[in-house]
Amino acid sequence: MSLIVQKYGGTSVGTVERIQAVADKIAGFRARGDDIVVVVSAMSGETNRLIALAAEISETPAAREIDVLVSTGEQVTIALLAMALEERGCPARSYTGAQIRILTDNAHTKARIEHIDVEGIRADLDAGRVVVAAGFQGVDGNGNITTLGRGGSDTTGVALAAALNADECQIYTDVDGVYTTDPRVVDSARRLEKITFEEMLEMASQGSKILQIRAVEFAGKYKVPLRVLSSFEDGPGTLITLEDESNMEQPVVSGIAFNRDEAKLTILGVPDIPGAAYRILGPISDANIEVDVIVQNVAEDGTTSLTFTVHRNEMKKAEQVLEQVAKDLGAQAISVDDHIAKLSLVGVGMRSHAGVASQMFGVLAEHNINIQMITTSEIKITVVVDEKYLELAVRALHTAFGLDQAPESE
Amino acid sequence: MSLIVQKYGGTSVGTVERIQAVADKIAGFRARGDDIVVVVSAMSGETNRLIALAAEISETPAAREIDVLVSTGEQVTIALLAMALEERGCPARSYTGAQIRILTDNAHTKARIEHIDVEGIRADLDAGRVVVAAGFQGVDGNGNITTLGRGGSDTTGVALAAALNADECQIYTDVDGVYTTDPRVVDSARRLEKITFEEMLEMASQGSKILQIRAVEFAGKYKVPLRVLSSFEDGPGTLITLEDESNMEQPVVSGIAFNRDEAKLTILGVPDIPGAAYRILGPISDANIEVDVIVQNVAEDGTTSLTFTVHRNEMKKAEQVLEQVAKDLGAQAISVDDHIAKLSLVGVGMRSHAGVASQMFGVLAEHNINIQMITTSEIKITVVVDEKYLELAVRALHTAFGLDQAPESE
Repeated sequence: MSLIVQKYGGTSVGTVERIQAVADKIAGFRARGDDIVVVVSAMSGETNRLIALAAEISETPAAREIDVLVSTGEQVTIALLAMALEERGCPARSYTGAQIRILTDNAHTKARIEHIDVEGIRADLDAGRVVVAAGFQGVDGNGNITTLGRGGSDTTGVALAAALNADECQIYTDVDGVYTTDPRVVDSARRLEKITFEEMLEMASQGSKILQIRAVEFAGKYKVPLRVLSSFEDGPGTLITLEDESNMEQPVVSGIAFNRDEAKLTILGVPDIPGAAYRILGPISDANIEVDVIVQNVAEDGTTSLTFTVHRNEMKKAEQVLEQVAKDLGAQAISVDDHIAKLSLVGVGMRSHAGVASQMFGVLAEHNINIQMITTSEIKITVVVDEKYLELAVRALHTAFGLDQAPESE
Repeated sequence: MSLIVQKYGGTSVGTVERIQAVADKIAGFRARGDDIVVVVSAMSGETNRLIALAAEISETPAAREIDVLVSTGEQVTIALLAMALEERGCPARSYTGAQIRILTDNAHTKARIEHIDVEGIRADLDAGRVVVAAGFQGVDGNGNITTLGRGGSDTTGVALAAALNADECQIYTDVDGVYTTDPRVVDSARRLEKITFEEMLEMASQGSKILQIRAVEFAGKYKVPLRVLSSFEDGPGTLITLEDESNMEQPVVSGIAFNRDEAKLTILGVPDIPGAAYRILGPISDANIEVDVIVQNVAEDGTTSLTFTVHRNEMKKAEQVLEQVAKDLGAQAISVDDHIAKLSLVGVGMRSHAGVASQMFGVLAEHNINIQMITTSEIKITVVVDEKYLELAVRALHTAFGLDQAPESE
């Protein structure tokens, strides 16, 4: 008998019919004897509906009240799912974040979990009940309702699994696992049986939207075995494990992540003095613009150029800030480009295999794809290329690094 | 400076625009220096929407989960209203029933308030904040969410006013006060300046839907001055007071209540033995059918007949029970009639004025209206008549008892 925490996202509980399908699924697990704690999100569309109501009332609604408002979304789902379970003869109880006592800090709309009381949950499990918990929400030390920010239900699931020392945390979603790359771009993309936490983190931060980064970090930190599965079809999904447990014959590259959400800004001819990078990126950060890839070159004439990427939605804002910075620093020019794409090879195997970068650059050169920016980490190589070459680059790399076929060890 | 508890019902907060209008109103009260605690219902239609979702999942949804579900309705309203107040520069905080700690028993969907913690509310008021409380909901001793049943927001308002020893509890609704009778039936119906708790109770129990009976009882018990006002137009409304405070020159009849929701059942030729009434009404009660008016006659042949009224929706069910009872008791026959209406003259003045009943019967006789049942209390005379005569009866009595004109003392 295992203790399993299952998280179902907004799409999985988006209608009454889907809630009933989830209840059927859970009743099946119970029948096999497993103890189940379920974490659910708001029905898809509900959070947006509530935020739209708030937007009608105020352009800058009080954050405390936003949390009171949007936390009703999951509360509706937990009640409906608990009813559906009881209707199936499967005893169940629903709990809000405050009722469980998922204690968070008081950073409304982006709170962090500090502690979870598990005594009540254990008592329910011992009594044979399924515990249905609201994801995404908690309560601060003064009893105020808080939320963890978008996607926070994954974090709730992992945190509950860690606090309960669960055997597995299963994240049910609308895809059946983590793929070598986006199957909509590469036909031969394959579902991975396993992936390490580090790889999953890099995949997530590079645009793979399956799991929230915080949830993966949390699971890695507390060594919670995490599994991504489909709500709609049966299958083993992808297990996210500690590196030690994964196969020694790890392929060099596990997957290719990419995104088209970024824009590139360059400031040219900046006097090469200490603190130049700080004087450029400080004002960008002060304007609350998040910077992703950063590359600095030194030119022979004693000036330097700095290139960085930001989310496309923030390009205009970043450009305005940069124009002022260029004046202040006496830089020669700035340029912006939103027709770029970022792609990353990810794999813990890179640690023990040299030559991955040069092989990657070779493949891109073969196809006449110019590399605009390069940045690397221990288990990842990221390049920025012209957006129009993205699909071609991903397909070529997918084949070149042997991702089209399952590795023999699997 | 007064402490006022204001309750706004579902229609008053039915749209974002109406919530904003309520916020304007409250900001005006604050500007005059009053401390305000606001109790709100769910936006109109929201509770029904949620219950319909539950009905899709189960014919008999778990009562505990119904409360988790429907309590989200008020939670949305408190958040939106608090945002709207803050948007107007009027500091405000929203609280669910559990957050305030409106402690109730554990009778889900029809819980009763046992205690209210007011320390937190007082701290907010002292800090210059408007407290926005969710009506209709509370929490039991084990932290489970409870609801007070339909219309329970009035009760929340009165209970908060009592616990806070407020100067007045104002119930904002879609009518501008309590009327001598329904203005849709009698053109000359007048708004009453004042009415006593006892009269209001009788009016409410006889079909006047303005206030929930439990809220009026509660207000009377704790001597909370209660005022019914319109959300949509300014005006003094109707003050519901202790009898002592009301005018000595109290008119004999304060108002006429009526309803068409009932049906009449008669069982004829029952052997007149001790316990007959119990043996008839016991099975009705066991079937969870609520009985309103009961009249028993003794015939000369040693048999008795018993007539009673039930809600029209339950007539068929009551008829089935009664058929079995008639067999068991050897009664001669049963008859049912759902074309009846009940009307009541209400007034504390009846206590000191004889002859009200005979005057009432005289007026009805003048118009050839046959009286089918009569029942009286200290401050009320109720008759059941054929439904088709209802409007005529109400208008005739309204004129005959001087309700068309305001009494001189007002």
